[in-house]
Amino acid sequence: MRVIGIDPGLRNLGWGVIECEGVRMRHIANGILHSEGDNLAKRLLSLHQGLSAVIAAHRPEAAAVEQTFVNKDAVATLKLGQARGIALLVPAQAGLEVGEYAPNAIKKSVVGVGHADKVQVQHMVRHQLPGVELAGADAADALAVAICHAFHLQSANRLMLAQLATGSGRVRRARA
Amino acid sequence: MRVIGIDPGLRNLGWGVIECEGVRMRHIANGILHSEGDNLAKRLLSLHQGLSAVIAAHRPEAAAVEQTFVNKDAVATLKLGQARGIALLVPAQAGLEVGEYAPNAIKKSVVGVGHADKVQVQHMVRHQLPGVELAGADAADALAVAICHAFHLQSANRLMLAQLATGSGRVRRARA
Repeated sequence: MRVIGIDPGLRNLGWGVIECEGVRMRHIANGILHSEGDNLAKRLLSLHQGLSAVIAAHRPEAAAVEQTFVNKDAVATLKLGQARGIALLVPAQAGLEVGEYAPNAIKKSVVGVGHADKVQVQHMVRHQLPGVELAGADAADALAVAICHAFHLQSANRLMLAQLATGSGRVRRARA
Repeated sequence: MRVIGIDPGLRNLGWGVIECEGVRMRHIANGILHSEGDNLAKRLLSLHQGLSAVIAAHRPEAAAVEQTFVNKDAVATLKLGQARGIALLVPAQAGLEVGEYAPNAIKKSVVGVGHADKVQVQHMVRHQLPGVELAGADAADALAVAICHAFHLQSANRLMLAQLATGSGRVRRARA
């Protein structure tokens, strides 16, 4: 299964695509989109076009977006929200389910602790995806979101299989 | 010229289309889009589809979006930002220039004072667009944004014409 992770931002939007088969993960591609245009609407349009092109090129089957809150000020939060709207819309337009993860949940699933710094995250992304060349910190964060989502989908799968097994066990007992 | 005004919101997104010829304005349509879906990405997708359909149906040539800041909390501001991202994106995708106006600027241009309440805004929208039936408060706000943008475009036009007249006057003087 191919998973795209997105780290939204109005100026720089990080993205990363991985492929996972069971517990094995493989890097497909990563990059950073820089918004262009002399007004906000045009910058959002350029992010939409860029991210649509990434999804068309790498054809992920699932998507996840980092759930960031900027508490600095309302202007910064509104800017981030606008970019996040595009980051959530584009995979939904491609028919993908979009997961959302808080930064601490991403760090915990990738590094093991919720308060890891950027260096630790990049180190673990490189460890999980040997040979990866990172386009930058935002792309590394995006790959971390993708890895987190892959782990989450695997646990959900295992849980479903376990429930199915328990269910069929019950059926057998009922019939016996 | 047809102008669409948009009052963005994640739950309810107001829109209103007017036609203006010189100082005369005419109501074309107004409404409220309610986002649908069991997650944020799907709700943004439904707003995108709804607003795209409105623009395809009424073919505006200019667009304007209310520039709101919610200072209550970061979560509310982020939600609004995400809906605003869609409100700015859709007209840009249709090739329209998108103006942005702060709530006080809209009230000042429609009512005459920056601190008008909702009732005063609706009264003046009804006065400017005789016979209009308002779909609700968000649709009235959206029509107010459209009216504000129409006024702004008219003043910009007048300024341009005045500058052209002055420019040609100078040319005449230089030639004389």
